[in-house]
Amino acid sequence: MRYKLVIEYDGRPFVGWQRQDNGTGVQQVLEDAIRAFAREDVTVFAAGRTDAGVHALGQVAHVDIARPFTPHQIQGALNHHVKPWPVAVLQVEPVDERFHARFSCKRRAYLYRIRDRRAPLTFEQGLAWRVPRPLDADAMAQAARHLVGRHDFTTFRHVACQAASPVKTLDMLQVERVGEEVQVLAVARSFLHHQVRSMVGCLALVGMGKWRPEDVKAALEARDRRALGLNAPPDGLYFLWAAY
Amino acid sequence: MRYKLVIEYDGRPFVGWQRQDNGTGVQQVLEDAIRAFAREDVTVFAAGRTDAGVHALGQVAHVDIARPFTPHQIQGALNHHVKPWPVAVLQVEPVDERFHARFSCKRRAYLYRIRDRRAPLTFEQGLAWRVPRPLDADAMAQAARHLVGRHDFTTFRHVACQAASPVKTLDMLQVERVGEEVQVLAVARSFLHHQVRSMVGCLALVGMGKWRPEDVKAALEARDRRALGLNAPPDGLYFLWAAY
Repeated sequence: MRYKLVIEYDGRPFVGWQRQDNGTGVQQVLEDAIRAFAREDVTVFAAGRTDAGVHALGQVAHVDIARPFTPHQIQGALNHHVKPWPVAVLQVEPVDERFHARFSCKRRAYLYRIRDRRAPLTFEQGLAWRVPRPLDADAMAQAARHLVGRHDFTTFRHVACQAASPVKTLDMLQVERVGEEVQVLAVARSFLHHQVRSMVGCLALVGMGKWRPEDVKAALEARDRRALGLNAPPDGLYFLWAAY
Repeated sequence: MRYKLVIEYDGRPFVGWQRQDNGTGVQQVLEDAIRAFAREDVTVFAAGRTDAGVHALGQVAHVDIARPFTPHQIQGALNHHVKPWPVAVLQVEPVDERFHARFSCKRRAYLYRIRDRRAPLTFEQGLAWRVPRPLDADAMAQAARHLVGRHDFTTFRHVACQAASPVKTLDMLQVERVGEEVQVLAVARSFLHHQVRSMVGCLALVGMGKWRPEDVKAALEARDRRALGLNAPPDGLYFLWAAY
């Protein structure tokens, strides 16, 4: 039986979604939890394989469990066995066997949180990117419009990115001041490795007044990683939702 | 020279505002930081002496520093020297020597955050009270109205409370659903020890359907600590602001 899971996690203690030699991955914590209650060796597949320090508010994953359980039982047992890791299974739903969290995904959304203030962060240390000067969110929103659409995003792509093509369609890149932070919402079918962080880094340069909005357009058109102004840290990045 | 400080802190690693034998207080971290840069032994006085595990978004304190510094220098030096504690000085302002953070305070506000969901908390572990069933915020708001005004709050007072009288005037007790949480805002000139947590505990019982709104009125009128239904944990409590 295949189940779709909606998962929230605090990325701070993890090396990322995937297991690595140098630390624990979220995937591993979930697989170990399933082994603990269902006594089955399983693989959990996610819509977005987040990097070290990146968080999730609505990661989607799927897993096959042979023994019969109700979704309610699976949620309770998983949340019990993932302790003390900061992972919570918000939803469990039986799905068709053709459902694949990664390959069936039609659209992914990421949220990036920037706190622009002089004082260091307390509650949000590692949960937002602190920029010590006030950001101009309107200028950032203006710059973001240059990136929406179908483009060659080579500039905004990690050198180790394994995607076959640097051409992607960015459906939405919205910048908004929400209280004492600036939030960037990015939506696309899929993203290149580090694409959101690279786009946010350049938008932040515009917000600080170091770049003009048109400089983001020039960076995009350069199709050259060396034209990237700044790559934002993982701290502020959240996998928000996946649509199927 | 006297300075007013506005301070944010994550209460999780602290035994409370005041120093104790069994751990570190926020006050001590600030006094040590001032000693480190100003080379003066000082006492920092706060508007609200929060308990262990209680947080602050806008605690107000004052301190006297003899050596000449600008407020900007004091903020920068304090934020540097409080590291690695989760304390941030948001604002520093010179004030008249008659200003006293505790005794001049005309009104204090506390925020209490309740997350009503089945899944355990991840980002907000220790930063909100998790109640595993949905809360009826409207019923809670109705119950809260019985507590507003001038009353004998003996039921909602910790047995060790040192206030001279159990009679206090509660100016505001507002309950509101904000996204996926229920927030309680409490405003008064001053509060009894554990008063906010005790009021929130009883409101939560109403939200869960275990008490009717009128039961909160009966608990108040009992003027008896044994009539208290539930004392909410420190996790969800934030000192929000102090007015002068």
